[in-house]
Amino acid sequence: MTIEFLSVEPPSEAARREAAARHAVLTKPAGSLGRLEELGAWVAACQGECPPRPFTRPRVVVFAGDHGVAKHGVSAYPSEVTGQMVANFLAGGAAVNVLANVAGATVRVVDVSVDSDTAVGDLKVRRGSGSIDREDALTPEEAVKAVEIGRKLVDDEVDGGADLLIAGDMGIGNTTPAAVLIAALTGAEPVAAVGRGTGVDDQGWMRKTAAIRDALRRARPVIDDPVALLAAASGADIAAMAGFLAQAAVRRTPVILDGVVVGAAAVVAEELAPGAREWWVAGHRSAEPAHALALNHLGLEPLLEFDMRLGEGSGAVAALPLVVMATRVLAEMATFENAGVSGPA
Amino acid sequence: MTIEFLSVEPPSEAARREAAARHAVLTKPAGSLGRLEELGAWVAACQGECPPRPFTRPRVVVFAGDHGVAKHGVSAYPSEVTGQMVANFLAGGAAVNVLANVAGATVRVVDVSVDSDTAVGDLKVRRGSGSIDREDALTPEEAVKAVEIGRKLVDDEVDGGADLLIAGDMGIGNTTPAAVLIAALTGAEPVAAVGRGTGVDDQGWMRKTAAIRDALRRARPVIDDPVALLAAASGADIAAMAGFLAQAAVRRTPVILDGVVVGAAAVVAEELAPGAREWWVAGHRSAEPAHALALNHLGLEPLLEFDMRLGEGSGAVAALPLVVMATRVLAEMATFENAGVSGPA
Repeated sequence: MTIEFLSVEPPSEAARREAAARHAVLTKPAGSLGRLEELGAWVAACQGECPPRPFTRPRVVVFAGDHGVAKHGVSAYPSEVTGQMVANFLAGGAAVNVLANVAGATVRVVDVSVDSDTAVGDLKVRRGSGSIDREDALTPEEAVKAVEIGRKLVDDEVDGGADLLIAGDMGIGNTTPAAVLIAALTGAEPVAAVGRGTGVDDQGWMRKTAAIRDALRRARPVIDDPVALLAAASGADIAAMAGFLAQAAVRRTPVILDGVVVGAAAVVAEELAPGAREWWVAGHRSAEPAHALALNHLGLEPLLEFDMRLGEGSGAVAALPLVVMATRVLAEMATFENAGVSGPA
Repeated sequence: MTIEFLSVEPPSEAARREAAARHAVLTKPAGSLGRLEELGAWVAACQGECPPRPFTRPRVVVFAGDHGVAKHGVSAYPSEVTGQMVANFLAGGAAVNVLANVAGATVRVVDVSVDSDTAVGDLKVRRGSGSIDREDALTPEEAVKAVEIGRKLVDDEVDGGADLLIAGDMGIGNTTPAAVLIAALTGAEPVAAVGRGTGVDDQGWMRKTAAIRDALRRARPVIDDPVALLAAASGADIAAMAGFLAQAAVRRTPVILDGVVVGAAAVVAEELAPGAREWWVAGHRSAEPAHALALNHLGLEPLLEFDMRLGEGSGAVAALPLVVMATRVLAEMATFENAGVSGPA
């Protein structure tokens, strides 16, 4: 089974140069807004025009799914939490809901593979996934279907007006496949990629490391085939996120990446649609060690280092106001000429 | 001349503990919001209650003033820019205006010592300052008057409903006195404290380093007397900011610190009102080397590292949404019990 994405074109270098030129005539010393200037130029490049338009519909899509490996003691929480949290997102009580309210984004949650019934199950590919330390997560057909769901979600959202996208994850056990995918594609050892996830204890950490080692052994033969790799070692939620991140680039829509699970989907998405990473900025660096490996691999420098490790898109949404500020500075600040301010002596 | 501040009481440890306890029952793994959790607990401690109240009037006060030393080639820009930028702030065209609009803050600009006429000159202490490499910046009476202005501004703003304060600076040449004050109080050498400011060239950098060296020689005998130090080596704008930051702590009002000039005022404010630093959080670490010295001295870890070096309060305002998010997470997230979500297995 394979899946073809339309080729990814890079963001507009002409618009990026226009943004740099505009930054030189706004009422501030050249370069004095530091990273905010680069970030604004990236938004201009993604939109293909300068000054960039203010965002009108930043959109968070949370991908919920369960993971078979969670039955084998790799997480601090029971799998039933995944479905319970879907209800919490819908009620507006989760962290990402509150952060999105502050940042001016809206949140959609989709159940791709939750192992219980939810109110948003119309896109469900399957319940849970195979326990990746001993069996494939998905069939090849399920992997393709999940990637297609992610792709279609981007089309729906962008056609509905979304002008900035954030993917979030919810799934007990999901940092185990994330670590496997990242280790597989970056060449890292299991012990360099394993983290505490939601807060597993020392015994659980050892079980998790062993599961990552076994899953990695199963995944290594297929690392050159992204769909086969997703079937072997992801989950339908992560596969859908990979399709989502790849298609966002195809649709020329900027993305703020979240933490380790989205980061794992991103390293696979870059394999599915090379060049997609030019359309992404890293919202934060999480406390999970595999996340730093993924960001290094993608050549992305995070905006925030807050030791966050929640998922849900929370670290990306925390960084959204910075992206909004970077955009609006280019659009709204006065120039030296308009404000009657003298330039350098 | 001396000036007495009411003693500073620390933020409420009881409210901080309540916040930590509340974080443990919100629907997320314990500690998974990382730095946002600490920040929310700090806001609760400042407000003396948990959950903390959402901010209703975050307020930026920009202190504008000129500096005599700017006549001696230490800056890339001419002094006339200070007054021109005051007009730009009032028209809403400066970076801090745009950032504040995004972050939900309002901006007030006060002319403490601009060397030209402005529309907001009713608090002007004097025009400019003495060139600190060869003479005192201010008389002792002017230093006291400037500190009192900063103090009164806090009283006015807090009585008017401000519940979070940010000080910003605008003044060509002001990173020279800032470097002197920080070097004086941290024991650093001039060459460790000097930076490019608005972008001075190599010749200017050498003149600036020499000016800092000479001013530091004049300032060292009075480092134990904060008012005498402000008279010797600050400017009325910086002295007013020192009074502002000290009085914010007296009035139990949280502050987000900006970059190197506010950082210099902060190290002096901590001398004026010991313990004031407990009421401050560092918005960012600027590209100016003296700023890192000031933050280390105060024991503050910045929220952002964006290589910003603009002043105006811009780096603090950029971090404001993070403080707002940290506050609202504590107030608005569901608990495990309310949301019917299971805890750790």
